[in-house]
Amino acid sequence: MEAVILAAGRGSRLQALSACKPLTPLLGTTLLERNVRLALAVGARRVIVVMGYRHEDIHQWKNRQSLSIRKRVELVHNPAWSSTENAYSLARAASHLTGRFLILMADHVYSVELLQSLVKCHPHDGAVLAVDRRLGREGIDPHDATKVRLESGRVTTLGKELQRADAYDTGAFLCSPALLPILEQLQEGADTRLSGVMQKLADEGRLQACDVSHAYWQDVDTPTDLAAAREGLLATLQEGKQADGLVSRYLNRPCSRWVSRRLADTGITPNIVSWLVFAITALAALIVASAPWWPLHVLAGLMIQFASVLDGCDGELARLRAQSSEYGGWLDAILDRYGDAALIAALTWQAMQLGGFHIFWLGTAALAGSFMVSYSAHKSDRLLKEKLRIGRDLRMLVLALGTALQQPAAALWVLAVAMNLTVLVRLYRMRHVF
Amino acid sequence: MEAVILAAGRGSRLQALSACKPLTPLLGTTLLERNVRLALAVGARRVIVVMGYRHEDIHQWKNRQSLSIRKRVELVHNPAWSSTENAYSLARAASHLTGRFLILMADHVYSVELLQSLVKCHPHDGAVLAVDRRLGREGIDPHDATKVRLESGRVTTLGKELQRADAYDTGAFLCSPALLPILEQLQEGADTRLSGVMQKLADEGRLQACDVSHAYWQDVDTPTDLAAAREGLLATLQEGKQADGLVSRYLNRPCSRWVSRRLADTGITPNIVSWLVFAITALAALIVASAPWWPLHVLAGLMIQFASVLDGCDGELARLRAQSSEYGGWLDAILDRYGDAALIAALTWQAMQLGGFHIFWLGTAALAGSFMVSYSAHKSDRLLKEKLRIGRDLRMLVLALGTALQQPAAALWVLAVAMNLTVLVRLYRMRHVF
Repeated sequence: MEAVILAAGRGSRLQALSACKPLTPLLGTTLLERNVRLALAVGARRVIVVMGYRHEDIHQWKNRQSLSIRKRVELVHNPAWSSTENAYSLARAASHLTGRFLILMADHVYSVELLQSLVKCHPHDGAVLAVDRRLGREGIDPHDATKVRLESGRVTTLGKELQRADAYDTGAFLCSPALLPILEQLQEGADTRLSGVMQKLADEGRLQACDVSHAYWQDVDTPTDLAAAREGLLATLQEGKQADGLVSRYLNRPCSRWVSRRLADTGITPNIVSWLVFAITALAALIVASAPWWPLHVLAGLMIQFASVLDGCDGELARLRAQSSEYGGWLDAILDRYGDAALIAALTWQAMQLGGFHIFWLGTAALAGSFMVSYSAHKSDRLLKEKLRIGRDLRMLVLALGTALQQPAAALWVLAVAMNLTVLVRLYRMRHVF
Repeated sequence: MEAVILAAGRGSRLQALSACKPLTPLLGTTLLERNVRLALAVGARRVIVVMGYRHEDIHQWKNRQSLSIRKRVELVHNPAWSSTENAYSLARAASHLTGRFLILMADHVYSVELLQSLVKCHPHDGAVLAVDRRLGREGIDPHDATKVRLESGRVTTLGKELQRADAYDTGAFLCSPALLPILEQLQEGADTRLSGVMQKLADEGRLQACDVSHAYWQDVDTPTDLAAAREGLLATLQEGKQADGLVSRYLNRPCSRWVSRRLADTGITPNIVSWLVFAITALAALIVASAPWWPLHVLAGLMIQFASVLDGCDGELARLRAQSSEYGGWLDAILDRYGDAALIAALTWQAMQLGGFHIFWLGTAALAGSFMVSYSAHKSDRLLKEKLRIGRDLRMLVLALGTALQQPAAALWVLAVAMNLTVLVRLYRMRHVF
């Protein structure tokens, strides 16, 4: 699958915010970059961006991207952008397309769920349009939006002036290569609106509808729309991660969402947050292992719990900006494990000085158990539906309390028993699942 | 994909070894069970076994299997087994089949590589036969074997009496459902040989050949054939694992193959071997942590290296018997990590008593690094081609030497540096790969 992003228009109503509309900033990224990353995330091999107004700015934007983005983005220019409409821009990309392709609008904000639903559809020899049945939904101007009429899963009519409509056009299409010859015949001067091309497909019964009423999207034309998109995306953070444990769900997530909202517009990337969590954890471990003065231990306990909260923000920021990456998840996991090791070692060190040499064995059991819960999870997660998740959120809370209350041995006992027991239960239950 | 195993015949030449030919013992399993597991391993959802002679024995065999095998094996009886040939048996299974299906012979021994190559082919509206071009190969009687003539990738003639042949018929077919109507028309009394049915397909140009000359297989009719199959399978152990590190490749593997040959015919399962490795390692750790007398440390060092050798046998036995399972691999990984933790903790304990409290930090670094090498590997293995693999084989050798030579601190230093450095290099290199 490939993707085309239409980014040729001028977008005069947003010029106060950004000279080039596709590069309008949103939550620490830009409208265009967000859609490029989303298209890649839902499976596009290549993304073709059709530029027009201020195309030099978009060239510069591409040159600033990382290599993995640069080599998958192709820029195409529509020199007649001011006298033609968006289907003419799309036709400029046609010679670069070979199979199925997505069409996205640079000035629309989509959620990953919307595009995931769309790419599961089959366009057969026509196209699929993602539609939203929530007419009158907040944030969408019902007069300005393109609306559609539906009949048994197909779009029959598209237009801004429809009297009676069934759904909104969300501006995301999945097309079969059968569309390419139609596009190549488009002439400058004729009707070059994409809705015109799609209406012809609809007349032949070849335009299907994909209901995405569950998913967030927003058409961005004005500063008000942009503010609505920002709030709408931030609201999707509420959905949380299914894999969250209890501590995470009721204590950490509400706090991490608050922090993520503050970090959202900054240049701080998810990977920087992962490193920051590790740094705070390591510093707390250093304090625990070396400081003899109790208020410092309370401070270290607070730092540990703060690191645990911040540990949710890297994932949240990545989802918010469509920046999720396999490398990011892997880096976060490795830094988290080293952080665990530093903290547990520091508590063991402190406990040995209070209680003697033999606490070493308790500390080793706590350290091994904590590692093993994470190590065994990557297979068992998929296969076991664990009702009570024992994870890092609980581990960090136990360590924070043990540190702040100066009860290192008690914290180690809890970890050693709970973590190794979790692994044992998994070993037993997995026998029946594999 | 489904699979049919033809197991109705009498096999009189093997009766001295087993009353029921499909249940003839081979390397701690039976001919039939081996083929059932192979079919499941290469992707069959269900295996249909067509029984005839002594079908009660096969019913009993099924009842002794684990639940996961029992629910995927279906038994079908050919009551006319003594008066009909194998295509008539196959037709008994036809009503249970829906899509593509494998045909295997209960009295053939296949390697997993052979079936993996076969299932990659497409039978279109006919069938694919796995053929072996190594005519005159050791272990195959050229007069008794079915031979084929080939023309541009298709089989033109099959038979035992071919004057000029191009390859052996290995007795493994992949068929399209187009074969089912042909089978259902077969009458008792007519030609009910499978080679007859396949010759008709070949006459219509619908029988393709899949060259499996690289893979092991053996037709088992006599006790000599069975002995040849046993040696042939044992010889496949020589191929080794690509993921082996240097210590494993040149020191451990030759020894573990020797042990696996001795264990092959016993009832010791791969999972028992994994537990045994853990038990030996834990016992060695106990000796290191508690025994003050040096000859015991030399013994513990030898035990550690022996456990490292034995650690190769679970995988070897599983491959030999087609018993590889996701659970087995997972259990082995978890037990290995606990074994590592026990050994490193024991050495740290010993080193602390010789060198003082602060060695605790060195031990923690060695423990964390060892865990992290394994933890980070499951993603990086696929993406990085590491020339010098730092793995458990090296870790165990360092621990064995450190124990036997009573240099625990030196062993911990080597591990702490080598293991954490490996993780750091991976962190750096993966940035460019993801």
